[in-house]
Amino acid sequence: MLIDGKTIAEEILAEVAAEVKKLTKQPRLAAVLVGDHVGSRKFLELKKQAAEKIGIDFRLYKFPADITTQKLRKEIVGMAKAGVNHGVLVELPLPPHINSQYVLNAIPPEKDVDVLSEKSQGAFFVNRGEILPPAVEAVKIILAQNNIGLRGKNCAVFGYGLLVGKPISHWLASQGATVSVINEFTLNANRYTLNADIVISGVGKQNIIKDDMIKDGAAIIDFGYENLEGRITGDVDFEEVSKKTSLITPVPGGVGPIVIAAVLSNLVDLIKKAN
Amino acid sequence: MLIDGKTIAEEILAEVAAEVKKLTKQPRLAAVLVGDHVGSRKFLELKKQAAEKIGIDFRLYKFPADITTQKLRKEIVGMAKAGVNHGVLVELPLPPHINSQYVLNAIPPEKDVDVLSEKSQGAFFVNRGEILPPAVEAVKIILAQNNIGLRGKNCAVFGYGLLVGKPISHWLASQGATVSVINEFTLNANRYTLNADIVISGVGKQNIIKDDMIKDGAAIIDFGYENLEGRITGDVDFEEVSKKTSLITPVPGGVGPIVIAAVLSNLVDLIKKAN
Repeated sequence: MLIDGKTIAEEILAEVAAEVKKLTKQPRLAAVLVGDHVGSRKFLELKKQAAEKIGIDFRLYKFPADITTQKLRKEIVGMAKAGVNHGVLVELPLPPHINSQYVLNAIPPEKDVDVLSEKSQGAFFVNRGEILPPAVEAVKIILAQNNIGLRGKNCAVFGYGLLVGKPISHWLASQGATVSVINEFTLNANRYTLNADIVISGVGKQNIIKDDMIKDGAAIIDFGYENLEGRITGDVDFEEVSKKTSLITPVPGGVGPIVIAAVLSNLVDLIKKAN
Repeated sequence: MLIDGKTIAEEILAEVAAEVKKLTKQPRLAAVLVGDHVGSRKFLELKKQAAEKIGIDFRLYKFPADITTQKLRKEIVGMAKAGVNHGVLVELPLPPHINSQYVLNAIPPEKDVDVLSEKSQGAFFVNRGEILPPAVEAVKIILAQNNIGLRGKNCAVFGYGLLVGKPISHWLASQGATVSVINEFTLNANRYTLNADIVISGVGKQNIIKDDMIKDGAAIIDFGYENLEGRITGDVDFEEVSKKTSLITPVPGGVGPIVIAAVLSNLVDLIKKAN
């Protein structure tokens, strides 16, 4: 089965739109772009389109690539304090000279739609968060729509990054799945993938997951978006792998739109919880 | 190689004792026991002995098993606010009617020697913590003393609990290890363990790890302490498994004493960082 991320996202956005209409104030989401990373700009443009379509006021704040950590943090503190902003997100990655986590920590949990501050991640890690990280929410939705439970399932997760691998690994394990975290140092990834009922990848390396690594009937969720040149490529060799799977997300049009819908859904959930 | 946890703990405690002597005030550690769990009492008694031996003032506060979450939290807030207490720990498990995480969140990070509040766990999860969870510290010490690196190593972790499996899995993955989290729903644990260079167990089920599950030369770290009757038993069938391993921790006398030393080392580290 090919997951149609656009359609799933439309359904989520329709629900969020209905919630937006019930709110007394128009929700406003402040988004931060540092520098001129093509992929980041493209992703923010998609977020803006989705937000505006459902009545969310999306404000983009651009800062030069050479901004200091202190200056950027101060700007974000200001945005977060402003009552008009209901949510704040920082598009990653930030330039290497910036202390990303220190910057992200300026977003208070009640406005942290991406669940990236230390506090929000802590709440998530102890399973007490109000909302889930958008990538986790996307996986949860895909699995739920396809009646895939997690207890006793073998899951292989490629990568352990801030946005995909780390939160998803933790979530899968806390749901009773058997989870293997695979990275670039793993000597024989096949050993894990050939046994995996579910493979989730978020490393941004084109076609590293081949058909001879996957068992028949596996479910494959491909977050392979992180491309520094702004090209949208998958981690999975879709053409070949898709012949063997019970479920697969294409790139583009798979998890990407669902993640964006989850960010906006998080914004509205946080507003509702604050009221 | 058999890990002599008592000797390693003595070495750590000697270092901590030297640090304690340099401090201007005697460190004081407040420990909370709720109810009369035999295993908890035993473990607290060992912590008290180790603390007093190196000049730490260890104060045990006992509360009845039927104390409410609110009342217990209030007591801990009071202890944490008291300037005389440099560290606060709550012996787990708490009775089932208590919201453990809410209680643990009453300990501020600068006094959270066990790294169990939401804030401390958040800092740990984003790799920004001042100290490591004691179980992680114990693993780190054992691996370092035996020159075992983590990149490219296959690790199998049994259990995903608050004290052992969850923090250790995260730490191993963040150090570049390939990590599989195995639980009671895992259908074929052998598939993971037979490939594992390092096996870490923290489930408290006697002898669930057998010699035919382990590859020759593996390193085995057994946290199998959690026994509700206060009996100290291992998760590993030590007699048979130890014949095949390059390194193994016995129970008792393995990781247990090292974990206790790590708690006291954390106390002194937090005091030094606050000054």
